[in-house]
Formats: sequence, structure tokens, C-alpha cells
Amino acid sequence: MSESKKIFLTETDIPRAWFNIIPSMPEKPAPMLNPATKKPLTAEDLFPLFSEEASRQEMNTTDSWIEIPDEVRDLYKIWRPTPLVRARGLEKALGTACHIYFKNESVSPVGSHKLNSAIPQAYYCKQQGVTNITTETGAGQWGAALSLATRMFGIDLAVYMVKISYNQKPYRRSIMQTYGAEVIASPSMSTKAGRKIITEHPNYQGSLGTAISEAVELAMSTPNCKYALGSVLNHVALHQTVIGLEAEKQMEIAGEYPDVVIGCFGGGSNFSGISFPFLRHNLSGERHSRFIAAEPMACPKLTRGAMRYDYGDEAGYTPLIPMLTLGHNFEPANIHAGGLRYHGAGAVVSSLKENGLIDAVDIPQLESFEAATVFAKSEGIIPAPESAHAIAAAIREARASDEAGTPKTILFNLSGHGLIDMASYDRYFAGDLANYTVSDEQIAANVETLPEV
Amino acid sequence: MSESKKIFLTETDIPRAWFNIIPSMPEKPAPMLNPATKKPLTAEDLFPLFSEEASRQEMNTTDSWIEIPDEVRDLYKIWRPTPLVRARGLEKALGTACHIYFKNESVSPVGSHKLNSAIPQAYYCKQQGVTNITTETGAGQWGAALSLATRMFGIDLAVYMVKISYNQKPYRRSIMQTYGAEVIASPSMSTKAGRKIITEHPNYQGSLGTAISEAVELAMSTPNCKYALGSVLNHVALHQTVIGLEAEKQMEIAGEYPDVVIGCFGGGSNFSGISFPFLRHNLSGERHSRFIAAEPMACPKLTRGAMRYDYGDEAGYTPLIPMLTLGHNFEPANIHAGGLRYHGAGAVVSSLKENGLIDAVDIPQLESFEAATVFAKSEGIIPAPESAHAIAAAIREARASDEAGTPKTILFNLSGHGLIDMASYDRYFAGDLANYTVSDEQIAANVETLPEV
Repeated sequence: MSESKKIFLTETDIPRAWFNIIPSMPEKPAPMLNPATKKPLTAEDLFPLFSEEASRQEMNTTDSWIEIPDEVRDLYKIWRPTPLVRARGLEKALGTACHIYFKNESVSPVGSHKLNSAIPQAYYCKQQGVTNITTETGAGQWGAALSLATRMFGIDLAVYMVKISYNQKPYRRSIMQTYGAEVIASPSMSTKAGRKIITEHPNYQGSLGTAISEAVELAMSTPNCKYALGSVLNHVALHQTVIGLEAEKQMEIAGEYPDVVIGCFGGGSNFSGISFPFLRHNLSGERHSRFIAAEPMACPKLTRGAMRYDYGDEAGYTPLIPMLTLGHNFEPANIHAGGLRYHGAGAVVSSLKENGLIDAVDIPQLESFEAATVFAKSEGIIPAPESAHAIAAAIREARASDEAGTPKTILFNLSGHGLIDMASYDRYFAGDLANYTVSDEQIAANVETLPEV
Repeated sequence: MSESKKIFLTETDIPRAWFNIIPSMPEKPAPMLNPATKKPLTAEDLFPLFSEEASRQEMNTTDSWIEIPDEVRDLYKIWRPTPLVRARGLEKALGTACHIYFKNESVSPVGSHKLNSAIPQAYYCKQQGVTNITTETGAGQWGAALSLATRMFGIDLAVYMVKISYNQKPYRRSIMQTYGAEVIASPSMSTKAGRKIITEHPNYQGSLGTAISEAVELAMSTPNCKYALGSVLNHVALHQTVIGLEAEKQMEIAGEYPDVVIGCFGGGSNFSGISFPFLRHNLSGERHSRFIAAEPMACPKLTRGAMRYDYGDEAGYTPLIPMLTLGHNFEPANIHAGGLRYHGAGAVVSSLKENGLIDAVDIPQLESFEAATVFAKSEGIIPAPESAHAIAAAIREARASDEAGTPKTILFNLSGHGLIDMASYDRYFAGDLANYTVSDEQIAANVETLPEV
């Protein structure tokens, strides 16, 4: 009794620089390619799409630390630093000898880690006088975060929201509208890419790939307008390292160092954020942790994808990224962890995985909800269906360590809460959910025309 | 830039005792009456309904400080201490010279302050071997909090949820079910009170008064089962004083003392929680603040109610409480701040108001949503429709102070976030909401048969 549970930091502990892992990597990722010329991408190639500073950060392979502007740190103070929590309730529920910690990113006002990158992306746009931003959102976490961030800088935002989510997740749509964003169901009549699909398939319910194509097209064809992406890219992972940098200080206060670091995996933003700061100590040889990306069995790009040059979107507007991918036209089963239904992993994570520096596991949907329920009942927080994958992986690790008789210190990232995802829990309790997997043939067919890296 | 925004405390700063204001009151509230005998209530009269310790706390007029059990403090650590936030974004949006602070109770895992009392109520039941608890819930905030609290102590919970909310607010119902509670739409066939209403009015959509009657009836007729209430009563207000006690320390760290302290007002739980610890310094003559309870114009018990002996529920099962009331059969308009749609104020708050020690304002529904939107866009947090009333009152105070040329330090309680109330925001943006008021004649008719205090 009366043991401490949370480790708080003060606002002065919010990191002053993000950690860029690329300079520390023994083998650098292959370059991204310009989709038109197929030549290695330059920062300038990205200027039409992203702010100049985000473009430069995307291509930065030399600076390990990139300063966080004061204006960004001041907005981080709305909710940062986030607590590190010793999951004593979960430990007790599992009867484990392991020490389990989680970084609670769910305390952000939009309920997830996505604000960590939304704020600097909006800030850099504002700095160069951008007046409008476009983006896409699937489940709505990224769209909500960018809606708030753009509002803080007085930038107008248009969000293409996958049509099925627009209709099924009205709460996240309303959150974006409350912050003043325009939300458009995708496919829409507002873009060429959207009109083409609507006229060919009038009842098409949309996909993330299509929504990205629409957002990119609108940004490219509108003066003073940029596009923003919430995952996959290097500069997004960079911004998310505030998670791991804070967690590192907090683990130090707790007097422990993680044997295992876990994040759920969609495009890589929260996994990279919690992992990279600890991984730098692996790379320097000072310390050793194991890193586990927890992806859904229905969308297993890290565990079963192929290393190829692939597009980030369906229409092929984006640069070609060297990624572990299921193919940009892969259609994952309609699992409730909408934020993990993405075909590919970012270039850095893909390279780290290929080089054996990080591990990945794939989690069946039912196991993720079972883990979520155990966590909710023992720690009080109902996790987002995405974050539930990290919890499931942490539970697997704890059980395996106990069986082996070598209890470990496990750290995972609770990337968001599930209070706006309760319809998914309803369906789980009603027994309406299933596990989904993908056949080897399907993956092979999807990637077969993609160029080797 | 780089000014501090939040004031965090550590877990050792979680109060070790709750503050009981009654011993400090110059004029004590009139006694509650046993509904059967009409004689002053004793703690023993309450034992069939509540845990013995909660019953004793309810009647305690002598001890200013009541120790918080270690087991309760340990569970408070799941989210407490909560941040105190300097609302610099809101100050800027208003262009005010006032300093505005808010206590952020929305960071609890169920999104509101209700857990502060749910945990000790469940704990005291567990201590005496209670196996089952019943309660009612309107919008669902209290039901969600008690679902989590009972789960932590392995107690089974049955929640009577007002039928219209059960159907319209499926997310809050799912939250309760995720924590393992049984949720029953009220009126139901499971109680005499419910059956009577259903058979007489088959399409009746329920009310808080009916749900309380059902929960009380089930508790009274079930062995080893108690009832728990989330507001109105003294022991609930007592538990909520952790809010103000933490805020007092935090304001001291900020080097300020509030000129004005504001809470929204339904039955009194969050207003009492933020106010009473500061009010004790008014009562001792050391300091002076003004206290404002912000109630909805549609349910104006403090500003326009009558001081009468009234029941807490519709069927008249509860003790008679000396309260500012609109009558226990008052049916407030269907405003979206469901947690504020209650006919009466607790005995202590009613007495304080009658003696001029606190003030109250009534806020029209549209003004509350306007304030909520300004706050969301400037501070990032979408407030619960209930909490929006406190924000509206804070904005009024800031504007009045600026006009008078005497800027003030204003503190309000953000009792909860609105992420599960987005349907209300949708209707606000669509222009579907209206202001509601009550006629003097309606209030007079409702209270005319109630006994004077």
C-alpha cells in the first residue's frame, strides 16, 4: 500500500530537442524516390507538399538532435509531460513478477499521441505563411489532432475522412468540427481522384489510400496550401520522440531501465516515438532493450510484408518509400483498430526490422480486445483498440518471462484511450468480432509488381 | 513564451484527509428527516441504504477533517493529483487582464470528477462485506465512475440508467459494461416502482427521480446490497473536497489566491469539491473569495428555487432534505447538460446560499455551448456540457472585472471532458439547440405542498 504509481515530470522537463535516429543507424535506409523521375528524393522535391522545415527534417540524416521551437513547447504544455505509470493493477491481475510500466499518451485533449506531430507540422506551415492545410483521417485520431493544432495557429484545415468512418464515427467528426475544421467524406466530388472513384463505384465507402490521394491533390492544386501526414514519415517519427525522451527520464526516476519496449504499429508514429530514444542506447552499445512493434494480424506488414519501393497512397501521388509493405492496394479486413489498417511501415522502421534491430509480433483482433478489457478493469483506463495491441504484446511478454523464470521490466506506450471507440467494445462483448488473417498468396500478388529496394 | 501553464503535484500531495465544512458553518443546516417518522434522521436510519461509514460521514457535524483510507488514496493515484492549469489560451482569446485558472478533473479515466466519491463509497461497502451495489445514472458520468470503483473492489454493480440516455448515449452504457457493470434501462420491470410506471405509461422514457427510486428499492430488498448516490449528500461533497484541497496547494505554488471560485451545479458535488476548502478561509476570516455556483437556466434551484423539505427521488423513498428545490416532481427541459438536470441542491449548499455565503448564476444553454466552443478552441479541451456552465460563468466574471477595471484571479473547476457528448455539440452547431427557462408559476405549483424548513 501507499506505493507510488505515477511518475510526473514538470514542464521544464519537456524535451528541448527531438531525437533523430538516422545518424545513429549502422545501415541507413535506402533513399525515397521522386515518383516522377524515380531519382533519389531531395528536400526541395517535398516543398510543394510539406512545409520547408518539415521537408528538411524528413531528409535530415546528419543531425541527431533537432531543436523544438519555443512556440511548439508552449503548446506541448497543454498536456505534456505525460505521466509514466507503474501498472500495479495489471501486474496484480496477471500475477506476474514483471514490472510493467506504461507511458500514458491518452491524457492529451484529443485522447492520443497524434498531437505531438500535429503541432510542429502546423507551426512550420504558419512560419512560412501557409494559410490552408489538407489531410486525411481514418478512425479520426490524426484528423482531430491536426484540427486542434491548426486552430491554435489560425490555419484553415480540410480533412478527408474515410466515408465509412465519417458515417460510423460521428463523434470524431464532431470533435474536428468543434475545433473548426472542414470535414469531407472521402471519396468526394471535390477532387479528380474522388470524382473518378465515385463515378465508377457510386457506393464505394472509401479507404485511407483514397483519402490521402484526395488530400494531396487538393494541397497541390491550391495556392498557399500544404498537406500534412500523421505517420509513416521520418519527420513524424522525429516529433514523436518526445514520448520516449520523457519516458527515459521517468524510468530513471523509477530506478529502472526497460528490458522490453513495446508500441502498437500502424505506420510507425507511436512505436518510433517510444522506442527510438531507448534504441539509441542499444546502437551505442551502452544498454540493451528488446523492441517490439505490435501489429494486427489482419495487417502484418512487419511480420509478413515484403521490402519494396511502394507508394504511401492509392493513386501513387506520394514519393516511393523503401518499406516493408503489403502493397499500396492492399485492403485490410475491417478491424476496429482503424489506425493500424495501413499497408506499409516507414523507411526507418522497415530498415531497423530488416537489420534485426527491432522485433514485431502480430496480434489477433480478439486477443487485443481481451487484453484491453483486462487492462480497463485493472488500471481503470479503457484503451483505444490500437493501443490494445501494445497491451496484448506486453501481456505476452510478461507471461513468457514468468514462465522462463526471468521477470523483466516492460514498458509500453498507451497511445490513446478508447472512450470514443465504445461501439467497438460493444461489438466485442456481443461476440460479433472475429480474427482476420491474410494469405501468403494475397500478399505475394499485391507486392509482385513493386520494385525491389 | 515559455511561461508555465500547468501546476503538477506529486502523489505525496494527494490529501490525507477530506474537509468537512459543517463544523465551520456559522449556521448549521436544518436536520434531514426520516421519511417515515418525520423525525431528525440518525446515522443508523441510513444504515439500510448506505455503508455505515458513509452514513456516519453524512451525519458528522463535528470533525472538520476525516482521514482518507490508504486504499482509497492508492486508487486516487490512478489519476490524482490532477493538474491545475493557467488558461493562458482562454485569457488571450478573451483579451482579459484577469488570470484564469482551472482544475482539470477531466483527466480521470472516466473523464470526470465523479470517481473521487465512487472509490470511497465502494471501499466502505467492501469493508463491511457488501457484495452488491445499486445506483442510478442520468447522462452516465456517475454510473461510469461507480462501475470502475466497484470493479476495483470486486463488488457487483447494477446501474439504472434513464431510458432515454440508455438509448441515446450508448457509449457511456458501453463504458459501464466494459468495467463489468449490469446496466438496466429505467423504468424497468425489475422493481415495483418501475413496473408501476411501465404498466401505466408504456412509452415513458424515464427520469432521474424514477431511476433513483428503482435503485433504492432494489438495494432495500436485496440482502447484502447497498445503494450509492453521486451528488447532493454531505458525504459526497466531503469526498469531492480533494479537488479544492489540491487546488489550494497549487494556487499557492502559482503565488496567487482566487478572488472568485466557480463550479457548475447539478446536485453540488463538483461545486462543493472546488469551493469548500477555499470557503473555510472565508469562514475563518483569513481570506476572502467569492463563490459562484453556475446552474442551467432550465433548472434554477439555487437562483429561483424555494427552501423546503423535499425528497431526493420521485417516489419519496429518500430522507427529507432541507433544500433549495424546484420540487421533486419538477421535469427540467431536455438540456444537454444531463448532469445538471436535478431538482434540488444539497442541504449544506442550500444553507450557505440562504446565508449569503455563496452566490449562484443561471446560464442559458446557448451561452454554455458558446463558452465551451471558445474554450475548446483556445485551451484544446472540449468540455462536458455540464462543465461548460462553469466556463460561461468564468467568462462573465472576467468580462465584468475588465469593464470595472479591476482584473481578478478566477479559478473554476473543469469537472469533465465532453468527448462522449459530441452529439450535443453536433446539435449546437446545427442550430438545433434552444434556451429554456421556467415560469414562476410552475415553480410555485411544484413546491407548494412541500413543508417549510
